[in-house]
Amino acid sequence: MRDNKSFSIKFNLEDGRSPDRTPTRRMLSDMKGIYLDNKASEEMLGNGDKCIYEFFELGIPEKSSDLAFGTTILYSGKVGNEFFMTKGHFHKKLQTAEVYYCTKGHGYLLMEDPEGKTEIQEMTPGISVYVPPNFAHRSINISDTEPLIMFFVFRADAGHDYKTIETQGFRKLVIERNGKPDIIDNPKWKE
Amino acid sequence: MRDNKSFSIKFNLEDGRSPDRTPTRRMLSDMKGIYLDNKASEEMLGNGDKCIYEFFELGIPEKSSDLAFGTTILYSGKVGNEFFMTKGHFHKKLQTAEVYYCTKGHGYLLMEDPEGKTEIQEMTPGISVYVPPNFAHRSINISDTEPLIMFFVFRADAGHDYKTIETQGFRKLVIERNGKPDIIDNPKWKE
Repeated sequence: MRDNKSFSIKFNLEDGRSPDRTPTRRMLSDMKGIYLDNKASEEMLGNGDKCIYEFFELGIPEKSSDLAFGTTILYSGKVGNEFFMTKGHFHKKLQTAEVYYCTKGHGYLLMEDPEGKTEIQEMTPGISVYVPPNFAHRSINISDTEPLIMFFVFRADAGHDYKTIETQGFRKLVIERNGKPDIIDNPKWKE
Repeated sequence: MRDNKSFSIKFNLEDGRSPDRTPTRRMLSDMKGIYLDNKASEEMLGNGDKCIYEFFELGIPEKSSDLAFGTTILYSGKVGNEFFMTKGHFHKKLQTAEVYYCTKGHGYLLMEDPEGKTEIQEMTPGISVYVPPNFAHRSINISDTEPLIMFFVFRADAGHDYKTIETQGFRKLVIERNGKPDIIDNPKWKE
């Protein structure tokens, strides 16, 4: 990544993949304790590890003047009755926004601020979502068949705080109930 | 636009339009002196005004913690032999980047810094372009038939300086020559 030089990168609109770069992969084994149903998670792992999602990190300089961007490819599936989702994170610089643009699939963007306010936005192709500063965010794929593909942009110095969510979880979860997504309180959430 | 509240907006991937918002329209009459061939421009205007491009302004608070975003719809056509293009601008806060994601059409993103360095990136569906801080940027539609559709994101406090480009122009222009786009020096460019 050269400073102050333009560049272009292809991210296929249909599948989010890039012929130019290698994505970071999050496997089920990377997400221990993130899903509600530990037993279901262990059982799935017993049958072999599984890629839950992939995303691109372009190595943009971490400066407030700069923007980092890429796609996330979140696969379809469930752990127990909980839909496949990303780990979710706060920005280290809490006061920085993020923008998503969904090009394929069907999902939710779940957001939560440190004071416990929850927001959720549905994503279908063509839907852009504004994630305000101060909100942790997680994507959830609620399609039975299709990956969820999103283009994202955030201030390049925002940073990622995964720890807070790994430790306490989100206050809300999205599970399948009677064949439909249902937003429930997270029984494992801890302050 | 409420502060610190998420929202979603639809921007159709195919045509860039939004059922939720009204775009800002740039007519040929808004672009006097921007195209090289004034006579061709006046002749076109004589046959009635014409929308060259449209884009969305969402009224995001102009804060460094925030991101502004939307789509640009740049129509297909030429003024003389110069392809339809946006006015182009620097950011008022020069040291802020921008990101484009092309979802439809075929075009160029032309960039130029105050010292005269020119960069150009080709855009087709799925191509994202990183516009570095310090660079003026202009989109150019080189398709004979299709609109050029781009999703864009920039830091919400970046601001727009249109004046510099209106006064001196870009150092390069894109014209059609022998049925193909050609990047030439702008004979009207002035320091």
